[in-house]
Amino acid sequence: MIFLFTDFGLEGPYVGQMKAVLHREAPGVPVIDLIADVPPFQTQPAAYLLAAYTADLPVGSVSLCVVDPGVGGTRAALVVEADGRWYAGPDNGLFAIAARRASAAKIWEITWRPERLSATFHGRDLFAPIAARLARGEAPPGDLKDDGPAHGQDWPDDLAKIVYIDRFGNGITGLRVRTLPPDAALSVGGRPLERARTFSDRQPGTAFWYENSSGLVEPAVNQGRADEALGLAVGCDIAVTGQASG
Amino acid sequence: MIFLFTDFGLEGPYVGQMKAVLHREAPGVPVIDLIADVPPFQTQPAAYLLAAYTADLPVGSVSLCVVDPGVGGTRAALVVEADGRWYAGPDNGLFAIAARRASAAKIWEITWRPERLSATFHGRDLFAPIAARLARGEAPPGDLKDDGPAHGQDWPDDLAKIVYIDRFGNGITGLRVRTLPPDAALSVGGRPLERARTFSDRQPGTAFWYENSSGLVEPAVNQGRADEALGLAVGCDIAVTGQASG
Amino acid sequence: MIFLFTDFGLEGPYVGQMKAVLHREAPGVPVIDLIADVPPFQTQPAAYLLAAYTADLPVGSVSLCVVDPGVGGTRAALVVEADGRWYAGPDNGLFAIAARRASAAKIWEITWRPERLSATFHGRDLFAPIAARLARGEAPPGDLKDDGPAHGQDWPDDLAKIVYIDRFGNGITGLRVRTLPPDAALSVGGRPLERARTFSDRQPGTAFWYENSSGLVEPAVNQGRADEALGLAVGCDIAVTGQASG
Repeated sequence: MIFLFTDFGLEGPYVGQMKAVLHREAPGVPVIDLIADVPPFQTQPAAYLLAAYTADLPVGSVSLCVVDPGVGGTRAALVVEADGRWYAGPDNGLFAIAARRASAAKIWEITWRPERLSATFHGRDLFAPIAARLARGEAPPGDLKDDGPAHGQDWPDDLAKIVYIDRFGNGITGLRVRTLPPDAALSVGGRPLERARTFSDRQPGTAFWYENSSGLVEPAVNQGRADEALGLAVGCDIAVTGQASG
Repeated sequence: MIFLFTDFGLEGPYVGQMKAVLHREAPGVPVIDLIADVPPFQTQPAAYLLAAYTADLPVGSVSLCVVDPGVGGTRAALVVEADGRWYAGPDNGLFAIAARRASAAKIWEITWRPERLSATFHGRDLFAPIAARLARGEAPPGDLKDDGPAHGQDWPDDLAKIVYIDRFGNGITGLRVRTLPPDAALSVGGRPLERARTFSDRQPGTAFWYENSSGLVEPAVNQGRADEALGLAVGCDIAVTGQASG
Repeated sequence: MIFLFTDFGLEGPYVGQMKAVLHREAPGVPVIDLIADVPPFQTQPAAYLLAAYTADLPVGSVSLCVVDPGVGGTRAALVVEADGRWYAGPDNGLFAIAARRASAAKIWEITWRPERLSATFHGRDLFAPIAARLARGEAPPGDLKDDGPAHGQDWPDDLAKIVYIDRFGNGITGLRVRTLPPDAALSVGGRPLERARTFSDRQPGTAFWYENSSGLVEPAVNQGRADEALGLAVGCDIAVTGQASG
């Protein structure tokens, strides 16, 4: 299975053009849109989303990941294997968190280049053919790197910020609930938020936070929009107080 | 074939995470996005859309249906078989109309629970594995119910309201044209609408209603937006005058 | 492979209903959303997008193309074969440019009609079954035409206009870079634009034009929105000065 993780949007021809390559180069392999609307050009929030959303994908799956403001410039191209899950994409921090959280990770710098490489669409011309090769069981066409990804190594293990606003206005954060101190108290914009188990445990219109289905802290409002009620946007800080967990 | 009918939007990771489960649990079965943007949290309009959009699906197909404001609460989980078409989703009225319109329907309350059940994403954790089982030809993992769905039994056979606004601004209603009285006259917001056969039968900018490709009454404007021209929104009443049909 | 090229949007049930037909009539054939949001009802910009986006599709692929303001009216239905790539859709100019650019093109007027043909959704009822037949290797169910498509024959080889605004605000044009005069100078709204190779060659916020990954002239702003910065919209003229190319 090949999963697509991009900031391209499902609008326009970009995802379709990548799929055309994938189906041609890896016929019969299912291709699944995992997420196409991560915040454009922002590799740090994307890195935490990627780590959260790909952690449970099947071992052997390939994630084709493109958030690539430096496309056509000097950034390298990577293949990552993290606990048996494969990734292809740019070396700009996107894989830093997924690689760090894995119990075993290997990283290759891709040296292969296609015959035709546009300056602006490496998702189609470079990363899609590589993802197809990985899905066919071939080795990464590049050199094993010993020093990890070139970017993102100084980023924190968890990010106390909003990294995505979903269709319902909920604010996904880069904070895993299981790494919070047991007595953690959370607030956003100076406003303390209580924890709830699920939406229907709170009155419609009430703001709270809960552990979302990917294990992340998520401020939300039952049948309402947390982004509007709490002034949330990508990059907003979440304040966490409480004894740091081990 | 498995069809997805949700209010999740194609944005974000939710549909992709459901597909990951479906492809893992029912490999090789095509998964089709039927509709991902039914009005959020509103089970009554969704029930009429679901009945209209799944009526012609192939016999043996499975529709995975999630509009689920009560997720994580006490509402039950259902499997429905209606004239050979299968459905899985919450017991909140969503299947009431499709079951009622079928010449033969069976309903099961799902008693099986997965090892890992998040409080907020039963589409991925509960309904997707059930849909995959049904697609593999297995029996519903639950108990046959004799009393129909627990909700929606008091809803009308046809709903004289707008249930969806499409990308073009057309207003889909819950009214089947073939159940209208032969001399029916329709109006919305006090404004009478004439019937047309198709868009190009009316001048650009003219408001009318027509029988849409799913057999429903649909107010529209040729090359214009009926929602703006007529003030349409989900929940708006459609006034129907004329002798009631048998 | 079957590619979908429409103005339907991915919202709503329309694309899903077409896919249901395609999977039923051509089981096992991959169906790929190429683009679903070409400018609604506008066949001329769509014709240039279609020519650009399908030029590199695999030989033998089938593109199901629907931008069809005259649906249910008198416009004919076509199958086109252009350099081994197949197309099905309305005869309203949509295929004029792709057919003209091919070194060899054949056009059939479709005479077959399905048992059930709605007045407003020929994408599902007429063109999808035809695309499925073509994908199964069957001949077009109609008559070979000697006189080309009935519309669009007077359109220019390249269109010096914006034909699509993408998710990032970039303005795709109908101009192929390789047909520009070597000393071409471009401007939009009286504002001259310099050429760049890729986004990261320009400072964030700077407007420029570049050859996009489909070979077209594309005004853009690095990490900004060209539509806002330059006042771009579909239909805007691009001024090209320089000696006309041969």
